[in-house]
Amino acid sequence: MGPLLLLALLAHAPAGAQADDSIPASSNVPGAAYPRVHTDGRVSFRLRAPEATSVRVQPGGADNGLGPGPFDMRRDAEGTWAVTTPPAVPGFHYYWLVVDGVAVNDPGSETYFGWGRPTSGVEVPEPGVDFYDARDVPHGEVRALWYHSEVTGTVRRALVYTPPGYDDEPDRRYPVLYLQHGAGEDERAWTAQGRANFILDNLLAEGRAEPMLLVMERGYAEAARGGDRPASTRPDPVGFEAVLLGELIPLVDATYRTGAEREHRALAGLSMGARQALTIGLGHREEFAWIGAMSPPPVEGFDVETAYGGAFGEPGAFNTQMRLLWLGAGTGEERFVAGVRTMCEGLERQGIEHVVYESAGTAHEWQTWRRSLHELAPLLFGD
Amino acid sequence: MGPLLLLALLAHAPAGAQADDSIPASSNVPGAAYPRVHTDGRVSFRLRAPEATSVRVQPGGADNGLGPGPFDMRRDAEGTWAVTTPPAVPGFHYYWLVVDGVAVNDPGSETYFGWGRPTSGVEVPEPGVDFYDARDVPHGEVRALWYHSEVTGTVRRALVYTPPGYDDEPDRRYPVLYLQHGAGEDERAWTAQGRANFILDNLLAEGRAEPMLLVMERGYAEAARGGDRPASTRPDPVGFEAVLLGELIPLVDATYRTGAEREHRALAGLSMGARQALTIGLGHREEFAWIGAMSPPPVEGFDVETAYGGAFGEPGAFNTQMRLLWLGAGTGEERFVAGVRTMCEGLERQGIEHVVYESAGTAHEWQTWRRSLHELAPLLFGD
Repeated sequence: MGPLLLLALLAHAPAGAQADDSIPASSNVPGAAYPRVHTDGRVSFRLRAPEATSVRVQPGGADNGLGPGPFDMRRDAEGTWAVTTPPAVPGFHYYWLVVDGVAVNDPGSETYFGWGRPTSGVEVPEPGVDFYDARDVPHGEVRALWYHSEVTGTVRRALVYTPPGYDDEPDRRYPVLYLQHGAGEDERAWTAQGRANFILDNLLAEGRAEPMLLVMERGYAEAARGGDRPASTRPDPVGFEAVLLGELIPLVDATYRTGAEREHRALAGLSMGARQALTIGLGHREEFAWIGAMSPPPVEGFDVETAYGGAFGEPGAFNTQMRLLWLGAGTGEERFVAGVRTMCEGLERQGIEHVVYESAGTAHEWQTWRRSLHELAPLLFGD
Repeated sequence: MGPLLLLALLAHAPAGAQADDSIPASSNVPGAAYPRVHTDGRVSFRLRAPEATSVRVQPGGADNGLGPGPFDMRRDAEGTWAVTTPPAVPGFHYYWLVVDGVAVNDPGSETYFGWGRPTSGVEVPEPGVDFYDARDVPHGEVRALWYHSEVTGTVRRALVYTPPGYDDEPDRRYPVLYLQHGAGEDERAWTAQGRANFILDNLLAEGRAEPMLLVMERGYAEAARGGDRPASTRPDPVGFEAVLLGELIPLVDATYRTGAEREHRALAGLSMGARQALTIGLGHREEFAWIGAMSPPPVEGFDVETAYGGAFGEPGAFNTQMRLLWLGAGTGEERFVAGVRTMCEGLERQGIEHVVYESAGTAHEWQTWRRSLHELAPLLFGD
């Protein structure tokens, strides 16, 4: 290599970038050199903060695939702080930086609504896995639909995935999967963090799922002027149930070409959303024939006879009425997978038909839920 | 009032909230009590940071409607920092906090992509003005459409506003306004910061505009692996022009029921996007019959004969060919409004028909561009 070419190459290296195998995370804002992900899953973070006295990386939650952290960053002579984590679990991980005690976002990261606010995130690729990538296949649309809620007195927004070809087959009607996020997240989570649209695009391209709509709404239903109350991280099943059953489903059935009967309607969710799917779905089996619970919070003293208003009390009728009861969790989220196993033992004893899935090596995190959707969607709306 | 009722009311007051006329900004995350906007336009900011030694509010840019700032925050005994600004200009204003020298987002604010990254913003209402509010009128959809760009080798995302009723009139074709953001922003800006969808919804409800599609794409066109290069804040007219003309317009015309001729196609933008609208639009008058430039960066030594490849050289032909040349700026952005006035003087002298709009009292900020769209859209696509 001649010296001029070498200089040209060096001129394209970002300031402070390492001469190694790492690349900027796909979750970064355009042009941000950090965070960088190494081929073995290590993640390097960097922040310029000459006046700060302490900076660390805080993964979002103890179960986080980056590790429990915090990871203290070390300052160089110019005031740039840096740290590299041990190899992370593949997938999307929330994190934030703590600068002199204040939790702040990493300016290099796009923000993802989680933990009740826009939060940094880092995407660690899973080698050989592309079921949630934007592959070169036909893509569906994700449509934002605003509506005025009488329940809350506010304007709300649903995100609706329409599969490729929806606009080309004006006489076709589609089944609908209502898909709920977890605590502290909102209606954007399933597409931004979960890549639900790409998961469906890829399944459809492979002929492995029925074309369906996904409807994603915010699982909280505060009244107007709720801004003056601290954001709840508790489910609000009464309020959201009223929005879902009384407003959102009728709106979706009036706006899109849906199959408006229960056989064409599924309800699923993750964590808090799984609890909502079980509570609302099992409580309204006249509305939903398919229910999916991904990483549901464990129910203390689960009793199959009395749980969910006695929904499992008559196994024969239940099995006839319901087309699918699906449960899943990651093997790395011990409390949650134990809860699912306990529930499944009860269902088994009771003779309630169900499908269970365990995501190997993943915890209470988006990789579990991406895999869960990838497992659940092909089972929906078949004959 | 009995003591029990008083206690109940006090129990609902947020920690540290002022007993005054202020309310949480509509741009906040759900449940965040700060920032708060007062009826006179003052804005109160607050951050808990007991270990920090200095915290201030930095408005995004010298022209910012909050004032030039920075606003130093004062610490109370418990380590909460606070400041209230003088009355702000109405509209949306970017800002960030600076904690011990590090620019960070306010955890109370939703993030808005500007300044090359997700940035805090505060919405200051304009008394009596609701043309950009989500009024109780029929709402169009904003659809995210992903596609694979050969020009860049990346997956790109367009946001497409479809007006109310688009799905109910399957034989109707619609004109298209391509609408570009400013430097450091992206395809989300026109809806998130600009509320373009609500502006169109309201105009359509009043019968004041032709039903049209808005297409919003990112005005940068870095090649794949651009993540290793610092984000440009310069326009990239060659790259984006190739995406727009060679890929985006054909995709939109193939995907939606558009009028695919130049008479049904407009190009407009703000700031950097205005420069793109002028450069690309005037350079390709065979593609666009309507051009709008909101707060275009001033062109030094503007010469009407030679500007934009001599587009204005034959006034008669130009006036026959073009349906609209629209220019606008805020009276508070002196350099920009002076540039627009200079350009209009040249056009006047040359006999080039055009429409000019000045937004009273607003600067290089979103209130100027919301008003500009509200002025421009009714002039488009008429007979």
